[in-house]
Amino acid sequence: MITVGVIGYGYWGPNLVRNFAEAPGARVGFVTDLRAERLSQVSARYPSVKVSTDHRDLLADPGIDAVAIATPVSTHFELGMAALRAGKHLLIEKPMASSSAQARALIDEAGRRRLVLMVDHTFVYTSAVGKMRELTQSGELGDIYYYDSVRINLGLFQHDVNVLWDLAVHDLSIMDFVLMREPLSVSATGLAHVAGKPENIAYMTMFFDGALIAHVHANWLAPVKVRRTLLGGSRRMIVFDDLEASEKIKVYDRGISLNPSPESVYQMLVGYRAGDMWAPHLPLGEALQVEARHFVECIDQGVAPRTDGHAGLRVVRLLEAASQSMAQQGRPVSIARSLV
Amino acid sequence: MITVGVIGYGYWGPNLVRNFAEAPGARVGFVTDLRAERLSQVSARYPSVKVSTDHRDLLADPGIDAVAIATPVSTHFELGMAALRAGKHLLIEKPMASSSAQARALIDEAGRRRLVLMVDHTFVYTSAVGKMRELTQSGELGDIYYYDSVRINLGLFQHDVNVLWDLAVHDLSIMDFVLMREPLSVSATGLAHVAGKPENIAYMTMFFDGALIAHVHANWLAPVKVRRTLLGGSRRMIVFDDLEASEKIKVYDRGISLNPSPESVYQMLVGYRAGDMWAPHLPLGEALQVEARHFVECIDQGVAPRTDGHAGLRVVRLLEAASQSMAQQGRPVSIARSLV
Amino acid sequence: MITVGVIGYGYWGPNLVRNFAEAPGARVGFVTDLRAERLSQVSARYPSVKVSTDHRDLLADPGIDAVAIATPVSTHFELGMAALRAGKHLLIEKPMASSSAQARALIDEAGRRRLVLMVDHTFVYTSAVGKMRELTQSGELGDIYYYDSVRINLGLFQHDVNVLWDLAVHDLSIMDFVLMREPLSVSATGLAHVAGKPENIAYMTMFFDGALIAHVHANWLAPVKVRRTLLGGSRRMIVFDDLEASEKIKVYDRGISLNPSPESVYQMLVGYRAGDMWAPHLPLGEALQVEARHFVECIDQGVAPRTDGHAGLRVVRLLEAASQSMAQQGRPVSIARSLV
Amino acid sequence: MITVGVIGYGYWGPNLVRNFAEAPGARVGFVTDLRAERLSQVSARYPSVKVSTDHRDLLADPGIDAVAIATPVSTHFELGMAALRAGKHLLIEKPMASSSAQARALIDEAGRRRLVLMVDHTFVYTSAVGKMRELTQSGELGDIYYYDSVRINLGLFQHDVNVLWDLAVHDLSIMDFVLMREPLSVSATGLAHVAGKPENIAYMTMFFDGALIAHVHANWLAPVKVRRTLLGGSRRMIVFDDLEASEKIKVYDRGISLNPSPESVYQMLVGYRAGDMWAPHLPLGEALQVEARHFVECIDQGVAPRTDGHAGLRVVRLLEAASQSMAQQGRPVSIARSLV
Repeated sequence: MITVGVIGYGYWGPNLVRNFAEAPGARVGFVTDLRAERLSQVSARYPSVKVSTDHRDLLADPGIDAVAIATPVSTHFELGMAALRAGKHLLIEKPMASSSAQARALIDEAGRRRLVLMVDHTFVYTSAVGKMRELTQSGELGDIYYYDSVRINLGLFQHDVNVLWDLAVHDLSIMDFVLMREPLSVSATGLAHVAGKPENIAYMTMFFDGALIAHVHANWLAPVKVRRTLLGGSRRMIVFDDLEASEKIKVYDRGISLNPSPESVYQMLVGYRAGDMWAPHLPLGEALQVEARHFVECIDQGVAPRTDGHAGLRVVRLLEAASQSMAQQGRPVSIARSLV
Repeated sequence: MITVGVIGYGYWGPNLVRNFAEAPGARVGFVTDLRAERLSQVSARYPSVKVSTDHRDLLADPGIDAVAIATPVSTHFELGMAALRAGKHLLIEKPMASSSAQARALIDEAGRRRLVLMVDHTFVYTSAVGKMRELTQSGELGDIYYYDSVRINLGLFQHDVNVLWDLAVHDLSIMDFVLMREPLSVSATGLAHVAGKPENIAYMTMFFDGALIAHVHANWLAPVKVRRTLLGGSRRMIVFDDLEASEKIKVYDRGISLNPSPESVYQMLVGYRAGDMWAPHLPLGEALQVEARHFVECIDQGVAPRTDGHAGLRVVRLLEAASQSMAQQGRPVSIARSLV
Repeated sequence: MITVGVIGYGYWGPNLVRNFAEAPGARVGFVTDLRAERLSQVSARYPSVKVSTDHRDLLADPGIDAVAIATPVSTHFELGMAALRAGKHLLIEKPMASSSAQARALIDEAGRRRLVLMVDHTFVYTSAVGKMRELTQSGELGDIYYYDSVRINLGLFQHDVNVLWDLAVHDLSIMDFVLMREPLSVSATGLAHVAGKPENIAYMTMFFDGALIAHVHANWLAPVKVRRTLLGGSRRMIVFDDLEASEKIKVYDRGISLNPSPESVYQMLVGYRAGDMWAPHLPLGEALQVEARHFVECIDQGVAPRTDGHAGLRVVRLLEAASQSMAQQGRPVSIARSLV
Repeated sequence: MITVGVIGYGYWGPNLVRNFAEAPGARVGFVTDLRAERLSQVSARYPSVKVSTDHRDLLADPGIDAVAIATPVSTHFELGMAALRAGKHLLIEKPMASSSAQARALIDEAGRRRLVLMVDHTFVYTSAVGKMRELTQSGELGDIYYYDSVRINLGLFQHDVNVLWDLAVHDLSIMDFVLMREPLSVSATGLAHVAGKPENIAYMTMFFDGALIAHVHANWLAPVKVRRTLLGGSRRMIVFDDLEASEKIKVYDRGISLNPSPESVYQMLVGYRAGDMWAPHLPLGEALQVEARHFVECIDQGVAPRTDGHAGLRVVRLLEAASQSMAQQGRPVSIARSLV
């Protein structure tokens, strides 16, 4: 039985508590939040769970095996490092840290201590994203041509991070899992419409080795909600619309075919294919429950989670490069790769 | 009565011929195309119209007052210049030329000869785009925050121009008309998936003076067709979906409101507004018919058309900058402004 | 402070408990269910609430002021009558009883005892249905021409009632509230595809005094989920789509206009109007919370609820007639009106 | 080469002329219409085609092999009979006549004279309806449970026929082709909102031998356009949405499964299946062109068309029964079957 402590009981914390409470092999032992009124909600609902306004009480508790952190991004590094140093396995919200240097330090610390470090890339644990990865990696889609994602709505303006760190982080974590390839460079553009606040609308292009391009549009100030990803391959293409109640994934047997021109061997003629569309049945179920169980299993078996620190680092690295590029109106920025 | 000659009877030419044939105050007198079989279709349908495979026959005909050119982009400049030099008023397909230098030369020539020069920015003559301009320029939307457009489908790969010159040209001409503001710089990214062909997927950000940003996504290789523009203002926002049968324009009374923070006069608190949505009734009618009549009126009255050579130049200038930026993975390129 | 007891803790019971627990002026004192395992869930979540597998314990408890019944339809009458006879105010699930005779008996009993009798027509307490009633009763829609509703999905086959009693009951309760008019007769058709089970697909037409017609399509065996109502008036028309995340109500300024024919005063020419569409902003909020508070207020102030026993009776009367008509392949059945 | 004459050049006539002009093995020889101005359009467009305001000129012309009739329903019988008596093969608009007696008389006359009689059930010649028939008749859908169709919009009020004869006729002709089964009885309801005009909203249920039911909703006074058919089978279900640009047909692997109850062999437990959705690629192409060619082939080869007089009669019989039932508020009316 793994006993989990949760630091931060704001928007996401209650979901973590509920899911660990329901996960086999796990129980929730401690919850902390700076606000006492949030803790009284915990006590009302889960009378046996300890609470404190000081996360150090949780970390000092020897009965806690693992810690889940759901606090603002700017506190991730300090709290995460403290948890690892207290010998706790760690599940940390995305983005895992404010910089790639911080992310690397967390990875190193967890490695040294042989603790499980998992980043809460929740979408990776949905059946829709799992299906996209399966179709991509099995070769069903052919060569991958592009990944294009739009994640916009009238959303909460964040004060400490821009819209890419808040919304595009979802797309980058999905893309990392589905494509299993890392971009070489990033060009990003964006704008802040409220003086003194971070950018609330942003666009981000990623270049890869070979004929693959990726793009994310994130916007906190859109009149309509859109959650749509296009994944284009040489053989098939996918539309992933997360707002669809069912049929979130549609696979189109559609694309171009290249034929040598009769006039010149050097020229290719472009033909068009239009075939069936197919929406695979996706089992229902809460992704966070799948993820909570996976975290418990990784601790039990001492294996690396699907969304480990390296996955978290790759996403932070892209966000970091995007912020640099955005400050220079789209000038491309290389993704520096250390030997992690 | 204005007698119009049409050069090029491929995809768009038949629409020009039909609309000038139906426009009051106009008639079609001459059609040329390099392919004789296209001309036989003209003769079958319009027995009284002269035809030739040589556009010089048309230009030499003193009975022709105005010329409409619907040929590939690479020929626009040469044919347009020849038409103007033959003393004909000119309606030319978009983009009006392959470079801003060519566009400027056409403007100068038409100016010197006091001939009407109009660019076929067809969307400008739709009731939907007219309504967007009206709402924008009347101040209904408040300060304009962003213009975001997606124009994708499984479309014909062009051989001579990339997807921005083929698809984004529509968005740029609409944006120019609606916003009445010109970008300062452009950052564009894109990729060609067929070796030796122009880019078939591209993204283009435009920066303006002040807190306004614009973006266009164009793609010839998408599994689904999307034609959607978001226009965000401080008071209201518009979604323009050209694939909707009716209700192409939806106006959302939605956005943020800024209030001084009680704690600090320097900090603004962001509030959210969600109000009614409204879809104004848009009269039906073919935009090209409106445009054909406007061309005839401009000739009759000697006035500049709504989509004159300067509008055409502004669009070409953006495409030119985008192509330069795209070659450098998004490095921003300034829009040089000459004194036209 | 009103203390509420809830009989039945299956699908809907937990929602009743949660909403009365949160409603100001109310608390939950007792929950009963035949299944002990359901009650252990109650105790885990609400330790202070009394539980029993025998509803008579609840009815015998003098601390309970009001009872909410969420059990199968066939038990409504017996349990409701027992609750009233125990002197408890009563909130009862829809349809309120298995026959109009039973419904009338409940009304009479509550009247004699001066107890509040409310039927849980939940939709009546949504902002969408409230807006429909407002637009209908204010005359905004003009003369009401038709009410057409579709409520279909792959749903749970019920064992004791047919699909009209299970699904159409929602539409009939909405219609009763919005139109404030009662049908004169009913023609219904339907079929059972599983031998020995009630009809799982059914259609029901209602005739009114004057040029008004209503129709409901209910189906447990549809591949897609549809929740859509059309409300046609002479001046405006409404589409109510409950599956829309926002914009559930769209008001169309669309219809026909009648003009005397120039040739004959006896003949009317039909013209067509197409105007704006408008989606009023609807405040969010859980309908059952609104309803729970309304129940408490009605008890406190001794007034009749918006969905009182008479509303419940009118709905049962229609269902009863529909079942009769369905057994005769659509033969129309009059709605007998007693002097209630 | 079959020479076709067309009687009636209103809304549909021009489509018939254009399609026969383009069909291999056919040419258009004669067009008549009561209005001279319509004929001048024919002459402008097709100079070699003879025209007259008197259909008797066409019928008297020995050069005409076949006649297509596109006039109001009330004239179908008289004109169709005259054409057959003049020895012409006949293509007639739907519904083929105003009564089943008339339809039978046309069938008899054509049979006696060994002339081809085809009814213009255009939808039967679309790839979408062809696919529905294929999936239904191959057993892919399992046992057919229901056919449910909605065909509504703000449409032209007809003066001589009600909305079933105008709109539902499409659904009935599709259903006849897809199911290959004929209803036993009909219950229909409806209402006229304009005094002195036919019913503009109507509902029609059809009962079959066995556990199959069908329903059509037709409405000229709806704020939105809907063209949607559900076809439910025991193994799979189809949604046919004719307003979808592509993906008109969606096949759902969804339904119920029946298992013997462990407690009683007499009771079946209902289980639910939810599988993939699949949208078969449907070739584009104009249905009327397919139909025109089929008519020509039937004449050439002396075979009965897919939509022969018997198909037309079956549809008229249903409409006739529906009108009778509607006059009695839904009382069921049997479909009398003569030995045709």
